[in-house]
Amino acid sequence: MTSDREPHLTRRQWLTSAAVIGGTAVAGGSLGGILHHSQGATTASSTSDEPTDDVFFGHVREPFYGPHQAGITSAIQAHASYLGFTFHPHATATDVVRTLRILTHDAALLTQGKGALADTEPELAHTPARLTVTVGFGPEFFDRAGIPHLRPPHLAQLPSYRIDRLDPAYGQTDLLLLIQGDDPTSVAHAARVHTRQIRSFAQRAWTQHGFSYARGTHPQGTTMRNLMGQVDGTHTAHTQASDEHVWLRDSDGDRHVGATTFVLRRIAMTLDTWDEVDRPGREDALGRRMSDGAPLTGTAEHDPPDFEARNDLGFPVIAPYAHIRRAHHPDPTVRIYRRAYNFNDPPTPDNPHTTGLLFGSFQRSIPNQYLPIQNRLAELDALNEWTIPVGSAVYYIPPGVREGQFLGEQLLT
Amino acid sequence: MTSDREPHLTRRQWLTSAAVIGGTAVAGGSLGGILHHSQGATTASSTSDEPTDDVFFGHVREPFYGPHQAGITSAIQAHASYLGFTFHPHATATDVVRTLRILTHDAALLTQGKGALADTEPELAHTPARLTVTVGFGPEFFDRAGIPHLRPPHLAQLPSYRIDRLDPAYGQTDLLLLIQGDDPTSVAHAARVHTRQIRSFAQRAWTQHGFSYARGTHPQGTTMRNLMGQVDGTHTAHTQASDEHVWLRDSDGDRHVGATTFVLRRIAMTLDTWDEVDRPGREDALGRRMSDGAPLTGTAEHDPPDFEARNDLGFPVIAPYAHIRRAHHPDPTVRIYRRAYNFNDPPTPDNPHTTGLLFGSFQRSIPNQYLPIQNRLAELDALNEWTIPVGSAVYYIPPGVREGQFLGEQLLT
Ligand code: HEM
Ligand code: HEM
Repeated sequence: MTSDREPHLTRRQWLTSAAVIGGTAVAGGSLGGILHHSQGATTASSTSDEPTDDVFFGHVREPFYGPHQAGITSAIQAHASYLGFTFHPHATATDVVRTLRILTHDAALLTQGKGALADTEPELAHTPARLTVTVGFGPEFFDRAGIPHLRPPHLAQLPSYRIDRLDPAYGQTDLLLLIQGDDPTSVAHAARVHTRQIRSFAQRAWTQHGFSYARGTHPQGTTMRNLMGQVDGTHTAHTQASDEHVWLRDSDGDRHVGATTFVLRRIAMTLDTWDEVDRPGREDALGRRMSDGAPLTGTAEHDPPDFEARNDLGFPVIAPYAHIRRAHHPDPTVRIYRRAYNFNDPPTPDNPHTTGLLFGSFQRSIPNQYLPIQNRLAELDALNEWTIPVGSAVYYIPPGVREGQFLGEQLLT
Repeated sequence: MTSDREPHLTRRQWLTSAAVIGGTAVAGGSLGGILHHSQGATTASSTSDEPTDDVFFGHVREPFYGPHQAGITSAIQAHASYLGFTFHPHATATDVVRTLRILTHDAALLTQGKGALADTEPELAHTPARLTVTVGFGPEFFDRAGIPHLRPPHLAQLPSYRIDRLDPAYGQTDLLLLIQGDDPTSVAHAARVHTRQIRSFAQRAWTQHGFSYARGTHPQGTTMRNLMGQVDGTHTAHTQASDEHVWLRDSDGDRHVGATTFVLRRIAMTLDTWDEVDRPGREDALGRRMSDGAPLTGTAEHDPPDFEARNDLGFPVIAPYAHIRRAHHPDPTVRIYRRAYNFNDPPTPDNPHTTGLLFGSFQRSIPNQYLPIQNRLAELDALNEWTIPVGSAVYYIPPGVREGQFLGEQLLT
C-alpha cells in the first residue's frame, strides 16, 4: 500500500497535511486545533464534507522553534519515552556544546517528519504524529559545561523522603530527553537516533516508557485514567498552566527567560492491595469519584473541590488525608504543572514494581513550588498506602530556540 | 470533559457506536469496514457528511464469539501484550477447566467494552479499541488437563537452531494470552485483570509487549515497518491468509476444527551493526527496497517477487541468501501466516538485546509448514547477521466458541 498511499487521503487530509507542512502555526498544537481552524474563516475551502477517513494525525506536527521548548504545555501525547544520559568522564565543555548542537539539529528534523542527519531509517520519521523532543539538564550538567555559576537556584535536588524506596537505576542524570508522540514507532525511532548520534559524548543511563490513551479513542481534552483507574490530570490541564507558575522570567536573569524546571518521579503502584479497597474507600483516599473524577463535593470533573464542605455528621467530605486536599497547597502561589504517563513494564523476578505513574511536574521553581507540595504529601497522603516512589530526578529545561540556535545556547555562549 | 463527553460525538460516531453496541457483525472487524458499510445500502442515514471528529475507534469492537478465536486474521492492532503462564504444581485438571472458564468469561466482557467479573477498574475497559484476547495451550497443557491423547501432531516443538541464543526467561509455557488492541490502556487493563483472575491456578512466567503503528497514523491496510526500517508483513497480509494454511479441519478430528497453531519467536535486532550497512546492502539482504517494500524485481510493494530474474551480469536480482528468497519455500503448500510486532524494551545492564521483532506465525501444522521455512532460514538467510532469536515457544490455539462455551471446551468435555 505504500506506493499508492496518496489516493487514500481525502481532501481534508491534504489540507491538514498541507497546512502543517506549509509551517502554519497550529494553535494548541493538536489536530482538534487544526480541524477547528480549518472550519473557520482562515481556510474556507476546508469546510468540505468528505466522509471520515482513517488517517488523521500521522502528519500532525508540533512546532519545534519558539520561546519555550515543545512538549511541556501541549496536549498530552499517547506515548512518552524518558531517556536519562550521563556524559562520558572525558567529555569536555566543548563536547557538551557539540552534544546539544546535534540534539537540536536532529530534534528539529525528526519532530517535523524528516529523517535526522545520516538517519539510516528515515522512513520511520515520516509520520511524527505530534512528536516532541524536550531536553533537560541535571544539576551536574552545569559543572560539566563549565558554567556552575549559571545553575539557577530554582533547580534544587529533593530531600530524601520517608516514603521513598529509590532505585539508583532511575537516579539523577546529566541530561534528559523527554520524547513524546502519538505513535510508538516514531517515538522509538527518535529515541534510538538521538542515543546513537550523541554516543561519543554521553551514554544512556535509563529509559522509561509511558503511555496514556491512544489518540482517537477519546475526545480531545479527555483526562486520562491512571492504572489505579483514577481520572488523573484534571486540575492541571485546566487551571494550572498559568505562565507565572511555569516559566522563568526576566527577574530570573536574561538567560533563563522561557525556561522551566522538571521533576520526574517514577512512582510504582501496589495494585494488589489497591484491589482490596472498595469504591468508597478509594474515593475517600483521593477526594474524587472513581466514575468520572468529580470531587466528592461536586457533580462534574471540573467542579472546583470544596475543601470546607462537611457531611451530616460534621466530618469533612474531602477527608483530611485525601490526596487532593494534601496536594492542594493553601498558598495559591504554590502550584505545579503536572504531566503524567502510565508505565507498565514487564515484571521481572527481582522487580515486582513495574506498574505505576511516571509523574512529571513542571514549575518555575522546585524549592518554592514543588517541595512544599511534595513535603505535605510525604507527611500525609492516603495514596501513600498504595504508591512507592522508586525513581527521582530533577532537570532544568532550557528555553526554546529560534532556527540556527541550539538548545542551551542562552547559557553556553 | 468526562461528563460532557457525549456532545463531542458526531452523528457518524453515534452511528458507529450504535452499530457496534447493537452487535451488528462488523465485516473485517475494522473501522474501515464499519465506515464502508455504513456508507452502503444497509444504513442509508450514515452517508451523512459531518466533519471529521477526533474519536473514531475507542468503541470499535472485535466480535468475541465465532468459529475461530479473534486476533488471528483481523487487521493488526497497534499494541500487543503476550503473556505466558505456567500452572501451579498443584493445579488439577479441574483447575485447568476453571481457569479457561474464567478467562473466557472475562475476555468476552473485556473485548466488548465491559468490566470483567468483579473488575475493580471497569472504566479502563470501556474503550476496547478492537481489544482481542487469544488463548493458546503449550504442549504440556494437554498433560496438565489430563488429555495427552488429544495433543495434535500439528503442535510440535522447534529443534534448537545454530542461530538461537534462547533466554529461558522467554521459554515455553502452559498457557498463552495474546492480548491485542489499538489502545495501550485497555490492553494493560486486560492483561492485569486476566492475570489476577487466574492467579490461584497459574502464574505469569513472562510478559512481552509489542507495537506497530498507532491507529490513525497511516491508511488502513498499510504494512507496518519494523525497527530495521523494513516494510514488514507484505506477503502475509495479502496472500497468505488462505483458510487451508491456517485452520485445522475435519480431517484433523472434530475437536480441532477451527483451531490453529502459533509459534512465537522473540528475535532481537543488533541495530548498531545494521546501521553500518548502506541501502543497497540492506536491500540485497532482504530482496526488497527499503523505501517502499517493493521486491527488487518490481516497482510496488505488492508486486510478486520474480525469483528467476537476473541482472546484466547474469546474477540473480534477488540474491540467493536474501531473506524473502529463503523464506519463500518452493513448495506452495508450505506457507505460514505471520503476525509480527516491534518490541523496544528499556535496555538493562545485563541485557542489551531489548529491541527487535515479536515474530508470530499461525499455521495449521508446525511440522509441515513452519519448520521447513525456519530450517531454511536457520541454514541461510542474510538477515541472520543482524537478528538473534532470544525467545521461542509454541501453542495450540483452540477453536473459537459460541456464547455459553469456554475456550478449549471442544477438548475438555
Ligand atoms: C502515583 C502517585 C500519584 C497518583 C496516582 C496521583 C493521582 C492524582 C489524582 C487522581 C488526582 C486528581 C485529579 C487531578 O487533579 O489530576 C491528583 C491531583 C493532584 N496531585 Fe497527584 N497523584 C500522585 C502523585 C502526586 C505527586 C508526587 C504530587 C506532587 C508532589 C501530586 C500532586 C497533585 C496535585 C497538585 C493535584 C491537584 C490537587 C488539587 O486539586 O489542587 N500527585 N493526583
Ligand atoms: C527479526 C527477524 C525477521 C525480520 C526482520 C523479517 C523481516 C521480513 C521482511 C521485511 C519481509 C518482507 C516483507 C513481507 O513479506 O513481510 C519478510 C518476509 C517473510 N518472512 Fe521474515 N523476518 C524475520 C524473521 C522471519 C522468520 C523467523 C520467519 C519464519 C520462520 C520469516 C518468514 C518470512 C516469510 C515466509 C516471508 C515472506 C516471503 C515471501 O515473499 O514469500 N521471517 N520478513
